[in-house]
Amino acid sequence: MNDLFAQRVNPDVSSALAGLFPQDPNPTAVTFAAGSPNEQLFPVKEVQAAFNTAIDTQGAHLFQYQSAQGNSALREKLVTRIAKWGNVTTTADNILLTVGGQQGVELVAKTLLNPGDDIIVEVPTYIGALAAFDLYQPHYHAVPLQADGLDLDVLETTLQQHPNVKLLYTVPDYHNPTGITMSVAKRQQLVALANRYHFIILEDTPYRDLGYEGAPLPAIKSFDTEGRVIFLSSFSKILMPALRTGWLIADGELRDAILKMRLASDLETTGVIHAAINAYLDANDLDAHIQRMTTHYKQQRDAMLQSLTHYFPDEALFTHPAGGFFDWVTLPQDIDTGRLMLDIISPQAHVTYVPATNFYPQRDVHNALRLSFSGVNPTQIDAGMHRLGDQLKNAVHAAYPVF
Amino acid sequence: MNDLFAQRVNPDVSSALAGLFPQDPNPTAVTFAAGSPNEQLFPVKEVQAAFNTAIDTQGAHLFQYQSAQGNSALREKLVTRIAKWGNVTTTADNILLTVGGQQGVELVAKTLLNPGDDIIVEVPTYIGALAAFDLYQPHYHAVPLQADGLDLDVLETTLQQHPNVKLLYTVPDYHNPTGITMSVAKRQQLVALANRYHFIILEDTPYRDLGYEGAPLPAIKSFDTEGRVIFLSSFSKILMPALRTGWLIADGELRDAILKMRLASDLETTGVIHAAINAYLDANDLDAHIQRMTTHYKQQRDAMLQSLTHYFPDEALFTHPAGGFFDWVTLPQDIDTGRLMLDIISPQAHVTYVPATNFYPQRDVHNALRLSFSGVNPTQIDAGMHRLGDQLKNAVHAAYPVF
Repeated sequence: MNDLFAQRVNPDVSSALAGLFPQDPNPTAVTFAAGSPNEQLFPVKEVQAAFNTAIDTQGAHLFQYQSAQGNSALREKLVTRIAKWGNVTTTADNILLTVGGQQGVELVAKTLLNPGDDIIVEVPTYIGALAAFDLYQPHYHAVPLQADGLDLDVLETTLQQHPNVKLLYTVPDYHNPTGITMSVAKRQQLVALANRYHFIILEDTPYRDLGYEGAPLPAIKSFDTEGRVIFLSSFSKILMPALRTGWLIADGELRDAILKMRLASDLETTGVIHAAINAYLDANDLDAHIQRMTTHYKQQRDAMLQSLTHYFPDEALFTHPAGGFFDWVTLPQDIDTGRLMLDIISPQAHVTYVPATNFYPQRDVHNALRLSFSGVNPTQIDAGMHRLGDQLKNAVHAAYPVF
Repeated sequence: MNDLFAQRVNPDVSSALAGLFPQDPNPTAVTFAAGSPNEQLFPVKEVQAAFNTAIDTQGAHLFQYQSAQGNSALREKLVTRIAKWGNVTTTADNILLTVGGQQGVELVAKTLLNPGDDIIVEVPTYIGALAAFDLYQPHYHAVPLQADGLDLDVLETTLQQHPNVKLLYTVPDYHNPTGITMSVAKRQQLVALANRYHFIILEDTPYRDLGYEGAPLPAIKSFDTEGRVIFLSSFSKILMPALRTGWLIADGELRDAILKMRLASDLETTGVIHAAINAYLDANDLDAHIQRMTTHYKQQRDAMLQSLTHYFPDEALFTHPAGGFFDWVTLPQDIDTGRLMLDIISPQAHVTYVPATNFYPQRDVHNALRLSFSGVNPTQIDAGMHRLGDQLKNAVHAAYPVF
């Protein structure tokens, strides 16, 4: 039957999102693969109360077809929130609630991309964004990250060579997979480049509230002068993922076009969920909840950085994330972290991570890996990183023997 | 900024789904436009209890990232249900939960269609399906409906002329917008044609449980011998739309490909909702609930048929739906129901419906209209149809004066 499939299905390339998280039944197994939040921190009772409040207050009408754009009271609250924490001035009319951040990326890709269109991604980049972009068969251009975000010199060279670039995708805050944060100066310069070269920026910010060393920086969107930045965020990491509620800000005809794509894709998101989130925000202090979470996540981050120093081979380079869920480790050139995990590390040490190759549009980098510290406690981190570090030392010494 | 949009956005064609339901503040306004279920029939207390059961039972884990395919207990129940009511033998592994039926249509289009690919739709057809297909820029072929479903002679001629047709879309039960049901014989013959001409059938069945004169017919999928029928249904009409839960059955590599598209599109649906629907089904008799609904809807259907006979011009032809939400009215050739509604009927008679043009891929039929009786009670139906009938009589007599 696959002769009837669209080209985008491409049976030769498995989805970067599928099979990422193999289950290991070993009782000592530790996974640094999943980017899941720590569910012990979920405010279950408060959210349950919010569901009841929403249903008690609104009754049957809550379960009727509602609007493609989503609950307006919740959108009003997001306007206030992003003004306070991101310096973005917008209106509820420019906000669209989505099925998680993932649908936001997919809708933007759908709105902008014809097959073969030029887009720029930072590398490494978020796996789910590549999966969404892949659906629309773009021509990728990869721009590397520096410690303060995108390499703007390489970016400008790329733009000079490919002046028809339509879209640049970036995760500026506590980046997935590297943990890197883009500097304020670069945010401003990036918007200037977008104005000069006429492209759209998709600013994806699921982690922006999860900083361990200070308040969030102004959003790239806050420097937008021409309505060409689409800001995207989500409740998945700061509240709960299964609520499947993301949100994006887009202006004018861009907003209209995205909304048109949304209507045709799934009509609307789940009104009862939006009403529950809105009721949760009425009755609780989300920032206090975030503060509790970041206290925990900071300890997990610290444990991971410590164990990277203690247990990993000297040849490993790693990032120092100031927030978010991830650390990125680069190993010597000949180490293939994908094969190593499947052949040795997972079966012998019962530890998993996500190999580098998944984070590159051409799947052409093999000697790095993403570690997530969000779903594991400091004790698990120490035990798992010890075993992982030993295996990596073996692999490095086997590849680069010292005589 | 629209020079950066993808071709699929097509700013010249407004979404068939947008602006369908203009708000009329007049207190006597009656809308036959929206295909919304009657929210007075929603089992709000039972669903609220089901949310609480799901959260009490599963706690925090319910709110974690779960699976792209959806709650397995709910999928098991759907297997049993469709065996009983549709004669379909399948497994939970071949079921995928979607964001309403709409996402199911979109995912199938995404899985199969390259720009310019040939697809067949019955005409008139569901507006939302056209919106979803439009995203993937197919080449449409329209096959008319007869009183017992698709005209299979025209279909076979179309297939002979266009042997590369990939997909046929049909709503076989209480069709939207006409209320027509495809006969069992045609269901079987349609599968035979699909086997012979090698195309895939998308069987969209949001109304199949809402029959007013008998049990549902065997699904087209029940005659599938080669895994080329995708069965799609939804809880929107039999429970509540804002739960945004549809489900599809697909086999083998087709199922895998659709799941891959789903992962890239929005990762997964809302686990807490699926768990609540599952808990609702544990604690309640869905078929008894459906029985209560159909008792009401049958009265509404009867009121509409009666008022069509009483109030509409003799020149109007209309269908006699045995279930579902809709009746289709055909007027003489020169009557443009779109203009008439906007210029006269909505402002003067405060009645709305959906004009025919929205239900045709080329938007080229103007002399028909869809009436929905699902959201209005018999008194409203009588009042609104009386006013609407008078207007239509005026329009017909103006267009075809009798000297």
